[in-house]
Amino acid sequence: MKILVIGTLAFDALETPFGKVDKIIGGSATFISYSASYFHSPIYVVSVIGGDYPQETIQDLNGRGVDFSGVEVRPNEKSFFWAGKYSLDLNSRETLATDLNVLADFRPQVPEAAQDADFVLLGNLDPVVQQNVIQQLKRRPRLIVMDTMNYWMDTQMDQVLNTLRMIDVLTINDEEARQLANEHSLVKAARKILTLGPKYLIIKKGENGALLFHDNLVFFAPALPLEEVFDPTGAGDTFAGGFIGYLATKNDINFASMKNAILYGSTMASFCVERFGPTRLFNLTRPEIKQRYQQFLTLTHFETDLLT
Amino acid sequence: MKILVIGTLAFDALETPFGKVDKIIGGSATFISYSASYFHSPIYVVSVIGGDYPQETIQDLNGRGVDFSGVEVRPNEKSFFWAGKYSLDLNSRETLATDLNVLADFRPQVPEAAQDADFVLLGNLDPVVQQNVIQQLKRRPRLIVMDTMNYWMDTQMDQVLNTLRMIDVLTINDEEARQLANEHSLVKAARKILTLGPKYLIIKKGENGALLFHDNLVFFAPALPLEEVFDPTGAGDTFAGGFIGYLATKNDINFASMKNAILYGSTMASFCVERFGPTRLFNLTRPEIKQRYQQFLTLTHFETDLLT
Repeated sequence: MKILVIGTLAFDALETPFGKVDKIIGGSATFISYSASYFHSPIYVVSVIGGDYPQETIQDLNGRGVDFSGVEVRPNEKSFFWAGKYSLDLNSRETLATDLNVLADFRPQVPEAAQDADFVLLGNLDPVVQQNVIQQLKRRPRLIVMDTMNYWMDTQMDQVLNTLRMIDVLTINDEEARQLANEHSLVKAARKILTLGPKYLIIKKGENGALLFHDNLVFFAPALPLEEVFDPTGAGDTFAGGFIGYLATKNDINFASMKNAILYGSTMASFCVERFGPTRLFNLTRPEIKQRYQQFLTLTHFETDLLT
Repeated sequence: MKILVIGTLAFDALETPFGKVDKIIGGSATFISYSASYFHSPIYVVSVIGGDYPQETIQDLNGRGVDFSGVEVRPNEKSFFWAGKYSLDLNSRETLATDLNVLADFRPQVPEAAQDADFVLLGNLDPVVQQNVIQQLKRRPRLIVMDTMNYWMDTQMDQVLNTLRMIDVLTINDEEARQLANEHSLVKAARKILTLGPKYLIIKKGENGALLFHDNLVFFAPALPLEEVFDPTGAGDTFAGGFIGYLATKNDINFASMKNAILYGSTMASFCVERFGPTRLFNLTRPEIKQRYQQFLTLTHFETDLLT
């Protein structure tokens, strides 16, 4: 099983109530790759970097089964850069800088070896770029997962809708779901979005968990109540990485396996927010991941008591 | 087992994006009594009303095992009145009028028959009134549950803390928990609040479910994703009523039974919000309640899949 990931490899400058970092690796593909690699490899990344993206990170990811042959390197240019500052309660953030740099004219090139990928994760990018990637594939993957955001809906809703028709799973947050469906009720919004292409819809609600919708089925996964969230950057991408990594180990892709994929995605995200950027994802162990997954069992377990 | 409820019996004027009603019965004790009566009776209400509180409601509640001997009637005065208007997304509301009327000098009088109550629910009232009720009891009840709100913390934090030392279960919302503990992290806030008196803490997060804390244990109960919320008024009181009503049917009051009490409380609240005021609580059936509780099972059920 091959996983193909399209996303950014970038640098971030971050400021949270707990600290500040001027330059740390970031970008959706960084978080996704680290997270997914705990479950499955090979993972093929399609992205673009400048000469400044750290060689050690590439080597580290290579060692985890992450293939960079689809990553265009422009030695004399700079990688994508984002700077943001979080509010005191971490529920909102302000973008201080967005330097597209190499990303400005990014033309993804799926390497030959990944054109028969089984699992494809389209990170949050221009919807036309997302379509372009799908068109380069030699056969229909088993599963295409798409992330997007309000920015693309504001500026290119038609193209977002075009990508939606080509994919299987959409992951967005609650506000984006409401915007996409033009419905305040998430249940109504979900029903509408499931007519637009995706067979599965995951609505992420941050510290309030995630909802999975499929046909008339709904599953709710809580987020772990955490003592402290240090830096939420990349939590959504880490979630998506754990989600697709877990699924790539399964024979059956269905509502039941997606439930656990969400729980493992949430597990990985709960680690991510404990440190700046992807730092916490560098040295996790399987027993740690397993133990945290088990916290979800404890958190939601109860003995059924039906009224007589 | 006797349930004792202290709260308001009132009239509300409500405006939601879906409609408007000029005068409908409301007040915490109304919602609590209707909700709890589906699980257990007798329920003794301690409150005060004017001559305007409908005789039919009193008769209806009497028929459900709700005793009004602790309700002071002042025939020539008016019942407590509250008018509020909800925002489009129902997440905030504006108070348009608060006419205390009979509530202005309310001195609760626990009737003889309820002075040996087993389960006591202190609705959201002046903390001194709440203490006064506890002091009238002949013996320590099996369980005292307290509701409160930011208003009392803003104006009488010392008295809120005094009541906290006398109770077993505190139910508040997430913002109130943060305010009470002066901690943003709910996990940290909960740990602090559990040192202030209550052995159990329920943090209600509205459409995002509820958390139960006890010692080092945490349980998360989701809210049902609803197609449409028509009017959130009284949802918290309805939750509390289902919670205490369910517990009154149990021999063991512990973390396990509290989990189900929260699920039944949430079940009742999910009905409440479907119509104006307590209307939906007038004619529920046990099979309906059972069926909705089962939706919680479906919503959160998954087959454990531990990593190897």
